Amino acid sequence: MSDQFVPRPEHQFTFGLWTVGNQGRDPFGHEVRPVLDPVDSVHKLAELGAYGVNLHDNDLVPHGASPADREAIVKRFRLALDQTGMKVPMTTVNLFSLPVFKEGAFTANDREVRRFAVRKTLAAIDLGAELGAEVFVMWGGREGVEADAAKDVRAALDRYKEAVDLCCEYINERNYGMRIALEPKPNEPRGDILLPTVGHALAFINELEHPAMVGLNPEFAHETMSGLNFTHGVAQAMWHGKLFHIDLNAQRIGKFDQDFRFGSEGIRDAFYLVRLLEDSGWTGMRHFDAHAYRTEDADGVWDFALGCMRTYLILKDKAERMRGDVEIQAALTAAKADQLSLPTGPLSQVQASSPDEVALATQGYGHERLDQLVNELLLGIR
Amino acid sequence: MSDQFVPRPEHQFTFGLWTVGNQGRDPFGHEVRPVLDPVDSVHKLAELGAYGVNLHDNDLVPHGASPADREAIVKRFRLALDQTGMKVPMTTVNLFSLPVFKEGAFTANDREVRRFAVRKTLAAIDLGAELGAEVFVMWGGREGVEADAAKDVRAALDRYKEAVDLCCEYINERNYGMRIALEPKPNEPRGDILLPTVGHALAFINELEHPAMVGLNPEFAHETMSGLNFTHGVAQAMWHGKLFHIDLNAQRIGKFDQDFRFGSEGIRDAFYLVRLLEDSGWTGMRHFDAHAYRTEDADGVWDFALGCMRTYLILKDKAERMRGDVEIQAALTAAKADQLSLPTGPLSQVQASSPDEVALATQGYGHERLDQLVNELLLGIR
Amino acid sequence: MSDQFVPRPEHQFTFGLWTVGNQGRDPFGHEVRPVLDPVDSVHKLAELGAYGVNLHDNDLVPHGASPADREAIVKRFRLALDQTGMKVPMTTVNLFSLPVFKEGAFTANDREVRRFAVRKTLAAIDLGAELGAEVFVMWGGREGVEADAAKDVRAALDRYKEAVDLCCEYINERNYGMRIALEPKPNEPRGDILLPTVGHALAFINELEHPAMVGLNPEFAHETMSGLNFTHGVAQAMWHGKLFHIDLNAQRIGKFDQDFRFGSEGIRDAFYLVRLLEDSGWTGMRHFDAHAYRTEDADGVWDFALGCMRTYLILKDKAERMRGDVEIQAALTAAKADQLSLPTGPLSQVQASSPDEVALATQGYGHERLDQLVNELLLGIR
Amino acid sequence: MSDQFVPRPEHQFTFGLWTVGNQGRDPFGHEVRPVLDPVDSVHKLAELGAYGVNLHDNDLVPHGASPADREAIVKRFRLALDQTGMKVPMTTVNLFSLPVFKEGAFTANDREVRRFAVRKTLAAIDLGAELGAEVFVMWGGREGVEADAAKDVRAALDRYKEAVDLCCEYINERNYGMRIALEPKPNEPRGDILLPTVGHALAFINELEHPAMVGLNPEFAHETMSGLNFTHGVAQAMWHGKLFHIDLNAQRIGKFDQDFRFGSEGIRDAFYLVRLLEDSGWTGMRHFDAHAYRTEDADGVWDFALGCMRTYLILKDKAERMRGDVEIQAALTAAKADQLSLPTGPLSQVQASSPDEVALATQGYGHERLDQLVNELLLGIR
Repeated sequence: MSDQFVPRPEHQFTFGLWTVGNQGRDPFGHEVRPVLDPVDSVHKLAELGAYGVNLHDNDLVPHGASPADREAIVKRFRLALDQTGMKVPMTTVNLFSLPVFKEGAFTANDREVRRFAVRKTLAAIDLGAELGAEVFVMWGGREGVEADAAKDVRAALDRYKEAVDLCCEYINERNYGMRIALEPKPNEPRGDILLPTVGHALAFINELEHPAMVGLNPEFAHETMSGLNFTHGVAQAMWHGKLFHIDLNAQRIGKFDQDFRFGSEGIRDAFYLVRLLEDSGWTGMRHFDAHAYRTEDADGVWDFALGCMRTYLILKDKAERMRGDVEIQAALTAAKADQLSLPTGPLSQVQASSPDEVALATQGYGHERLDQLVNELLLGIR
Repeated sequence: MSDQFVPRPEHQFTFGLWTVGNQGRDPFGHEVRPVLDPVDSVHKLAELGAYGVNLHDNDLVPHGASPADREAIVKRFRLALDQTGMKVPMTTVNLFSLPVFKEGAFTANDREVRRFAVRKTLAAIDLGAELGAEVFVMWGGREGVEADAAKDVRAALDRYKEAVDLCCEYINERNYGMRIALEPKPNEPRGDILLPTVGHALAFINELEHPAMVGLNPEFAHETMSGLNFTHGVAQAMWHGKLFHIDLNAQRIGKFDQDFRFGSEGIRDAFYLVRLLEDSGWTGMRHFDAHAYRTEDADGVWDFALGCMRTYLILKDKAERMRGDVEIQAALTAAKADQLSLPTGPLSQVQASSPDEVALATQGYGHERLDQLVNELLLGIR
Repeated sequence: MSDQFVPRPEHQFTFGLWTVGNQGRDPFGHEVRPVLDPVDSVHKLAELGAYGVNLHDNDLVPHGASPADREAIVKRFRLALDQTGMKVPMTTVNLFSLPVFKEGAFTANDREVRRFAVRKTLAAIDLGAELGAEVFVMWGGREGVEADAAKDVRAALDRYKEAVDLCCEYINERNYGMRIALEPKPNEPRGDILLPTVGHALAFINELEHPAMVGLNPEFAHETMSGLNFTHGVAQAMWHGKLFHIDLNAQRIGKFDQDFRFGSEGIRDAFYLVRLLEDSGWTGMRHFDAHAYRTEDADGVWDFALGCMRTYLILKDKAERMRGDVEIQAALTAAKADQLSLPTGPLSQVQASSPDEVALATQGYGHERLDQLVNELLLGIR
Repeated sequence: MSDQFVPRPEHQFTFGLWTVGNQGRDPFGHEVRPVLDPVDSVHKLAELGAYGVNLHDNDLVPHGASPADREAIVKRFRLALDQTGMKVPMTTVNLFSLPVFKEGAFTANDREVRRFAVRKTLAAIDLGAELGAEVFVMWGGREGVEADAAKDVRAALDRYKEAVDLCCEYINERNYGMRIALEPKPNEPRGDILLPTVGHALAFINELEHPAMVGLNPEFAHETMSGLNFTHGVAQAMWHGKLFHIDLNAQRIGKFDQDFRFGSEGIRDAFYLVRLLEDSGWTGMRHFDAHAYRTEDADGVWDFALGCMRTYLILKDKAERMRGDVEIQAALTAAKADQLSLPTGPLSQVQASSPDEVALATQGYGHERLDQLVNELLLGIR
């Protein structure tokens, strides 16, 4: 696969340590791949053309490690970063694996669990700051419930807000200059998770003490699980000025969280997402939160990583071609796509207007032709 | 069915004219029931114990009616209201049936369509004000797209905001004192609809010119179509102070918009919703946006309407019993549900705390017992 | 769009009269396109390169038409067929639009309705035979229930079997030589429909009096609504020797029945389906059961029809390229895809074998690489 | 909870060792409960009133145990059975946990894996026979694919059939008199699993060498994941004479495999299922394939187990009440439910009939009233 679609650091591709390091465990099966040393991941991803790696606190430093061990681990890891030029643009905290979080973390009913969760987060923020991360992601995978009676959602949102506020306070105290990105998800591992979609999380931010510090890390798979249009969600996040980070992968609607290779399912959806990011001049990372199929050995993992990046680059090229495609542009004009930027008002003008209902009702918009042209662009026929 | 669950006006049950008036048309079949005169609906619903009726502009006044016809129709309708004591607490506008809206209404690409949509809405607001409606619902069923290329979502949100702002401006100009309630829906009739969930609509409101005037009208079926927990959505809307109205019905996840009789699917979900409304002291309407099965004749329609109200009252009684059930309350205490109202902070205290991870990880929360107790309450065994 | 992907009759593309004739009515909106004369559809589709048209009885002959009217209509229609060389390879019966079928047709509780349904079907079979149709499709859209208590499913299956048996008896009596193809669907317009998937219908056939006469007409959208893999379903139908006809379109999982242009959603799924049909030497029709977006005028309808056929041809070309792609073939070999045709047994050999568990567990299958290669083939990069 | 709903052995409730023994591991979290000794499970379940326990080979005997260890383990387990009177009516084989099965088991591309899978199954059949199991369940959780190119579905079905045929041959050779029950599932852990629904598995059986020996073990959660009506699926399995075993639990549509406590989600669906089993005189086991929430400690596990059985008994009581409820029975008559057992034919009579379409079209079926009455029965109001 040597062609124009070779990933390079300037493309700003990043992978979580947990993605290439995924060992293939699933609800019904044991691990199939050995543990991957984070240092090896850094070297291998650098070789493949990635810009950086992201991590949960415990992807790098095991839970309960002594300060000395932590220091040694971080030092060795930083050396790998220095040797390769790889960055750590984002870090996050694991508030889901440990049994202590089984009933929740920031929104656990037990106050001591909540304090434990916030403490663990503060430590993870320190680690992120140390590694130069500019974005700190919060995925509240355990913030939910199966037995609805057990959780007062309004009180839980109070505690959720409080926890995020405390973290902002801490970041400000330390002058870390870090921004927080919330990652919504509708369900799994909990029956229902709080802040289930991009929308719910966007709304939540408005109630925080430091709303400007907090934005979103929407994930393709998570919105798609609910059958929502992920590109629409990302567009709305941008519209609110709240796209801080993004998780790219692939997913079928209405299924378990699949985290497949980017573009492997939903080519058209992946294309419109890439087009939105590229056409809007997104300057952040293209982060992949996915993992190799369980059928794969170590080689398959790197094929997976390369595939994510190649597909992004191929779709980016398609987005560019779309801008220059005369027929597609004509079809967009026929669909009056450009008229949407014109104001409808002011009120006086609306009131004075006399639209011709019959003419408006009978006109066609040419969406079939437009959509087919885009499809043929995707299929490489134009 | 003569027992304690007899609906009375003080229960604040309302029905849309379009609900009992639904003729049973569906994507594959013709109408099976005759047109129902709105005046008859008012009388019949009053008889059954409802508080009021709600309506789209064209449920009462046909599109294109002359001013004289409109006046006569409204007068006759008002007479029925006066005779029965029925209210019209909410009205809305039909921006979805006419062919002119096939590509959108407030967010149509064609500016003339947008103006037509806003004009129609202003007239519907006038009608609502005339009938004493305090809430004006906006359901943007056509604000979406199938061929993603055809619609710039960020521009569409600009236009959506503009349209709502224009309506607020108009309401303020006229001193109607009316509040607007947005009704989110994920899809159907469009492939993807803008503001697809409670969350997306809540976030959107924050960008409006008059955010205090605008809240939500969440619908059971619409959130449930996406597999989201409707009660959680309503709770979040309340948390933001934005529950302005509510649409009650029943729905299966991942299916066409069913609008079944309240409580007929998802008994447990319906219960938690009623419990939330009742325990939180909701003072608004209990509005049913549902319709009778297509198998029904006119009698079936009134059985349907009565069933909606009875199930609500039965579940309300269960919610009250739950508050007084000693075992359930003990199970809630065992689950530490009450601890969720305690603050986690301040930061200094979190930092000073030393939670016992092992003890916290091994404790059980008794959710199985709690959930089973609630289930048995629902099944009438306790 | 003049290139190698020009549809021609030998490609065996067919459209239902109801597809291009769809007027854009949906559950929330009125018709947006005028009635299309079947004769015009025949001419226009012939011009576009189709092989034939399919129809429900009432797509051509209105319900209740007099014998004389029926004769005149059929004569005029046959003339259009003769003039264009278009065929009618499949016909079907509309057992869903009329109010009489609101509670079911073949499985209606009321025996008189069931008799009415069978009578209507026999007449539709006559019409099909007259037009030379070789396949008669049965879609039981009303054979289902919302209020589960109302329908004994086992009794309903008895009646379903009886109705199909009666139709087979009639076809044999008349020596029509026609085969019946059942079309499964999970829901919509009924809450749950009997024989909801390809599998349920395949199983059902085994209980019929004349199982050899009955097979399937699986539809892309219908299986996909349930999140099932349509290509797997078609492959299983073929494995049973029961693929008699096929309905091509596009659909998102977990949504209302969309019937979008073939390939417009789920490009990868559409590709694997086309590959299966072409690689297996499918000799039947490539029938499109889809319709144009409601945004379209008459021109959009023909763009839609052309798009369906073009996408099929493009994907057929990809399937051919896949067979000749050396790297993809090597990846298939690496995945041991060819070993699947080797028998596992006999029992004695299985019992005598001593597989090396560790070696088998550690080998990788290269699915990431294989899938990425196919993706790049689809995207036109190879 | 001491009342009439106390489980007793004659109710024929069984649990898998893996259900009460579930340690709460999930895709995002570690185990939260200690290993449970199968012997303790037997004693505890006996105490709670269960009839028996079911097991996978490796729930009892660890993979790779020496013959001596196996003998000791089985002996000790049998002692517990003897002491408690508990039975093992069903056993199964774990073909999903080991890494060797990552690409499939009976349908793995690699022949050596297939042989390993069949050998493991034969050994599990021996264990089942030794423990007196009459039903042997086969759940092919790994028989599927994510990268569609990698698996020829028709060849895979050939191998699937071959494997089941080999097992039947072995059972017959040994005169075990055991029957096989296939357990369908649509997805998870694989992207798409073969034989995804009750229907697909029923159809498959017809192609086997010994179809009479093979039936189904349908699972509530698995059909529900796809949004299919589980009770309809069970009814169809019964209609084919193929209900051999059943897995009871609870699940939301379109979500990860939840395996919740029976009746905790979908009360109405659970009711109709229990009614079908009881009204049809089902003589087999009421087997629970579910597990306690991850929030639970050991006590919660037994609350969970008791809850499953209690809810079944409560719903069984409701089914009995429904049979004796005069109003419900009158509503069923109004819905003409009993007419469904009348034959529609013969053909001559259908042809001679002259149904009154208008009268049939205007009659109502009273489903709203019927459904509401059943709902109120479920809610304990009647």
